[in-house]
Amino acid sequence: MTRRYVVFAPGAFGERAAKTAHGVIAYSRDPVVVVVDPQHAGKRVRDVLPYLDSDAPIVATVRESLRFEPTALLIGIAPPGGALPPAYRAEIVFALQSRLEIVNGLHSFLNDDPELRALADAHDSRIWDLRMPPAAPLFSGAAYDVTSRIVLTVGSDCAVGKMTAALELTRAAKQAGTPAEFVPTGQTGIAIAGWGTAVDRVIADFASGASEQLVLEGDRRIGARDGVLFVEGQGGIAHPGYAPVTLALVYGCAPDAMVLVHLVTRTKIDGYDIPLPGYRALIRTYEGLCANVKPAKVVAIALNTHGLDDAAARAAIADAREQTGLPCDDLVRFGPNALYTAIATQIGKTPVRTDE
Amino acid sequence: MTRRYVVFAPGAFGERAAKTAHGVIAYSRDPVVVVVDPQHAGKRVRDVLPYLDSDAPIVATVRESLRFEPTALLIGIAPPGGALPPAYRAEIVFALQSRLEIVNGLHSFLNDDPELRALADAHDSRIWDLRMPPAAPLFSGAAYDVTSRIVLTVGSDCAVGKMTAALELTRAAKQAGTPAEFVPTGQTGIAIAGWGTAVDRVIADFASGASEQLVLEGDRRIGARDGVLFVEGQGGIAHPGYAPVTLALVYGCAPDAMVLVHLVTRTKIDGYDIPLPGYRALIRTYEGLCANVKPAKVVAIALNTHGLDDAAARAAIADAREQTGLPCDDLVRFGPNALYTAIATQIGKTPVRTDE
Repeated sequence: MTRRYVVFAPGAFGERAAKTAHGVIAYSRDPVVVVVDPQHAGKRVRDVLPYLDSDAPIVATVRESLRFEPTALLIGIAPPGGALPPAYRAEIVFALQSRLEIVNGLHSFLNDDPELRALADAHDSRIWDLRMPPAAPLFSGAAYDVTSRIVLTVGSDCAVGKMTAALELTRAAKQAGTPAEFVPTGQTGIAIAGWGTAVDRVIADFASGASEQLVLEGDRRIGARDGVLFVEGQGGIAHPGYAPVTLALVYGCAPDAMVLVHLVTRTKIDGYDIPLPGYRALIRTYEGLCANVKPAKVVAIALNTHGLDDAAARAAIADAREQTGLPCDDLVRFGPNALYTAIATQIGKTPVRTDE
Repeated sequence: MTRRYVVFAPGAFGERAAKTAHGVIAYSRDPVVVVVDPQHAGKRVRDVLPYLDSDAPIVATVRESLRFEPTALLIGIAPPGGALPPAYRAEIVFALQSRLEIVNGLHSFLNDDPELRALADAHDSRIWDLRMPPAAPLFSGAAYDVTSRIVLTVGSDCAVGKMTAALELTRAAKQAGTPAEFVPTGQTGIAIAGWGTAVDRVIADFASGASEQLVLEGDRRIGARDGVLFVEGQGGIAHPGYAPVTLALVYGCAPDAMVLVHLVTRTKIDGYDIPLPGYRALIRTYEGLCANVKPAKVVAIALNTHGLDDAAARAAIADAREQTGLPCDDLVRFGPNALYTAIATQIGKTPVRTDE
């Protein structure tokens, strides 16, 4: 099913809180045809976020968005804790009355809301709660037998670009002729790929098991031997709130290799006055944990140099290379092909074809 | 409320699967007056498990247990995955019809079962789902400001004695005149102490936050400055399935010190063909993770020497001391006072009074 999205991000479209919306605009095959944010009404997406390179218009209300004929409303905000702010409720109600599908990445499930659920039923629409996890089994060890190579993006922190790195590397692998799949582990990745599990929403005891199931499913989707799975990491191993989910992926996905993702302008753990560990400390921590169950190395660094100019970005990349001896690049600024080629060599893949 | 427990552990009372029952028999202030296990019917508890030192009788059915006038039935089994095996259902139904309260540590909540819930209501009884978690907030950092010293037991693996170590150390601290509280983080600890949260049942994103809330609640319960909280750890940092919960406690409880607990006969990770890391590797891993957010040291080793004779136990303890340079003891075999005194010195507590 192809969707035509209206992104609902009132007061937030330019902010990090709208990162689900930004991800879908950048990577989903389903087009975003209009954005709702009164704060930027009258502009276009690229006026607010040039890197997204979309000329979708921004309007003030869901009512105004209807003339662009959307079929689904993506809730494009991610408030801490994940509950739907009451002020947005009337707009969601109106969207359902207008027969829009609601695509919801919040922690609180709109299908659990009797009024919204009844409205969806009454108007022949539906609510897709991206974070609704399937019943997950305990971790079984089956991930150790997957024949695809498993590459997990791991972060210095949350919201640094792990999903983007996994998506860009998947694209580069496919372009190089290698069977590859992106494995979505969070609400934005799920909206982009149309499958996956929000591991942060799984009961803690089953979070490793849910991660393992995703790798098994990714392997089935590749449907070929010798493919590569690029798994979207979550959180960061030094984040006091989100690290349990990070570790569930590190253990549950049983990676063969990891790619460390860092936002170069981030110096403290997101939301806390705690300094971020350096590259080498992070690599030591991730590799040390993997060594407990299935050894895996950090084989490359995907550096997010957002906010720097090209010269500063190149300097930051050179610095990371020097500190770690690893290949490093910014996959968005300079494209993913060079780093993918370096990773492919490390994990024993010979690119069949490359455009570089 | 004082309960008189019947422990329901058919076919399992002597097994590790009945560890919730064993914990309640050993540590709860509420007495276990009878056990149901047809396999051992006619014996007494201490005939099956001498270390529990209880002469409660074992009978074959719940019906037979009634003449010992229990008021609550504790489901004393813990199947992997946590669902109630169908064969036990008829006995649970009979117990509710007999007005027994059902105390349930399984992952599946009996309050969610319409028939059982209706039976409880009809017979003026209740179901206490030990693992039902409260709504937990995200980790906030408030645990960093707790004035009590926070000591977390951390394991080489799951089911090695972390809860027992925390309970024994709490007992020793109180005996030494120090305000102390045991902080329950799993179903058995909750049954014993009457409060707490099963952190493994919390949504992964909130598991650190739930751990933090437990420490804040423990601090309130102490109601005095300069107390000590002994937090029951969960899982083990090298366990591929349970480590996310372990890490939620390591970060969320913000410990000032850790006590490493190891079952000396355990050489592989429970359920996997993965060798257990050695003492020093485990200490490095736990301390390395804590260093990311709030530094804390492993200050002692609580060695579970169950299955060894006294001489072998002493040798194992000496070996752990030599390998790590840390105080080490078996808190059950030799009592907790010596190790508590050693820990108290490390965390800056002067025991007011000691019986040793």
